[in-house]
Amino acid sequence: MKRKYAIVGVGGIGGYYGGRLAQSGQEVHFLCRSDYQHIKEHGLQVESVKGDFHLTQVNAYNDARQMPPCDVVLVCTKTLSNNQLKDILPPILHPDSLVILVQNGLGLEQALEKDLPDINLAGATAFICSFKTGPGKVHHAEYGELSLSPYKSSLKPYRPFVGELLHQVSFDLQQAGIPTQYIEDLNFLRWKKLVWNIPYNGLTVLMNASTDKLTFDADIRQLLKDLMTEVIEAADACGAHIPADFVDKMIRSTEKMTPYSPSMKLDYEASRPMEIDTMYTCPILTARAAGYEMKKTAVLEQQLRFKEKYRL
Amino acid sequence: MKRKYAIVGVGGIGGYYGGRLAQSGQEVHFLCRSDYQHIKEHGLQVESVKGDFHLTQVNAYNDARQMPPCDVVLVCTKTLSNNQLKDILPPILHPDSLVILVQNGLGLEQALEKDLPDINLAGATAFICSFKTGPGKVHHAEYGELSLSPYKSSLKPYRPFVGELLHQVSFDLQQAGIPTQYIEDLNFLRWKKLVWNIPYNGLTVLMNASTDKLTFDADIRQLLKDLMTEVIEAADACGAHIPADFVDKMIRSTEKMTPYSPSMKLDYEASRPMEIDTMYTCPILTARAAGYEMKKTAVLEQQLRFKEKYRL
Repeated sequence: MKRKYAIVGVGGIGGYYGGRLAQSGQEVHFLCRSDYQHIKEHGLQVESVKGDFHLTQVNAYNDARQMPPCDVVLVCTKTLSNNQLKDILPPILHPDSLVILVQNGLGLEQALEKDLPDINLAGATAFICSFKTGPGKVHHAEYGELSLSPYKSSLKPYRPFVGELLHQVSFDLQQAGIPTQYIEDLNFLRWKKLVWNIPYNGLTVLMNASTDKLTFDADIRQLLKDLMTEVIEAADACGAHIPADFVDKMIRSTEKMTPYSPSMKLDYEASRPMEIDTMYTCPILTARAAGYEMKKTAVLEQQLRFKEKYRL
Repeated sequence: MKRKYAIVGVGGIGGYYGGRLAQSGQEVHFLCRSDYQHIKEHGLQVESVKGDFHLTQVNAYNDARQMPPCDVVLVCTKTLSNNQLKDILPPILHPDSLVILVQNGLGLEQALEKDLPDINLAGATAFICSFKTGPGKVHHAEYGELSLSPYKSSLKPYRPFVGELLHQVSFDLQQAGIPTQYIEDLNFLRWKKLVWNIPYNGLTVLMNASTDKLTFDADIRQLLKDLMTEVIEAADACGAHIPADFVDKMIRSTEKMTPYSPSMKLDYEASRPMEIDTMYTCPILTARAAGYEMKKTAVLEQQLRFKEKYRL
């Protein structure tokens, strides 16, 4: 049995993953915003290290109410517009649909569940360097792995079919050439991703420097490590146990990476709002509720809020 | 009995205080660096909110070995050149000379004492907005109070004449129109000054903004307060007990100040090195030795070191 896919947000992430799924033969429906007209007329063009492709016929929409109900919805927008999901999602869901938030940060599933208590949810983190270069045009520069994890709410019983469906999605993605990982513990997955995201996203903006420049400077390297250690301690207080040697592993793997501007740096440079709430504020508040103060992370949070306002 | 004064460093601080002392009739000898020739020929010009003056005849030197021994030496250079004091000071001292470090930071007296174990030392902090505008030209824009405190070494017995002489210096300064405060506890004085210096010096550089812009922004105001609280807790661990309501007092008094660039911001803008060691590293290490981690301050320290190197 085939699954019907919906992609919400056709940027660097949604365009690449949705494009790959469609290219592999899956039925994919794309909810676009600004690029709707262009994609409708010219399709979706993906320039990728894994091979370029051009989808000429794309199921493109600019209104969710015109989309069919889908089995799997990949939400690939920035978390900044998550408050719109309560209006966008209902028309494209049936009772057994699975919504996967392919986003950064913490507390995303909990927040969405407040608005839509009955939906089936999963979370995903993308290890990918991919961005939009023009209307309907995506450049996939490096990596691509997607880690998937089912959301187990504390408010209602877990429905085991969520895990089964997520495994099938993982299979579909692999068939489409996307490496995947299935992680049982979503809380662990989200915190683990923050170990890299919190230091690098904030500091590339605040220090106006790329990942390599930061990593190879002795002083900022120490700050990167200190921040990573703080995130691991916060995660630990929140029940996600990440081994301490993950810090050195992250530093070493970033050393080997092509110099890179994380999403927050790209947002800042394009004068877009930054994902401070979900990437900084929510982890800080969650850790505080568990009795741990993320003192260093809070400095970055406050500096980023100022920077976002004044861009000095 | 009159006292012979020496001023080491004729910038915004040394030029103003030394100039006022000379103007009031004290014998003052100025050790200059780059401005030596100009001051020798044209004297010292001070433009001040408290009244302008021009000293046409100045005892100017460019080599300490040509100066007479003096009773009181006011060191008004940046702490960055304090390692040169062991060579500069001996020729201008006699056994009962008093050296007063009019500088920012922590651990200054302890460091100098290692090089010159026999000198009599005091510390001072200047609450003044004063800077050099050209060779031999100083602009005093606002404030001016000097707080003085005797240094009591842990390595040798305290000589009570230091306190007496410091009181006399305080009197001389007042006669010259400079408001002074005599503070018994130098450790307290130095930490108290850091409560303002640590947040404002670092953040004006890092956020590229003046004191008013920082103080009136809700997010950075919280960070300023958090940093002040951290400095007060560190001070407490180091035996300097500053009341907690000093935080709100500092914020309120900065609100009323004319928008202002602290010394570190001026240094950064002029591409000069910044006083990171004495204003950040030494307090962090001193607090750590007393069992307190200045976690937020350490973030600023590491960011400033990066900023100083790359100026991005």
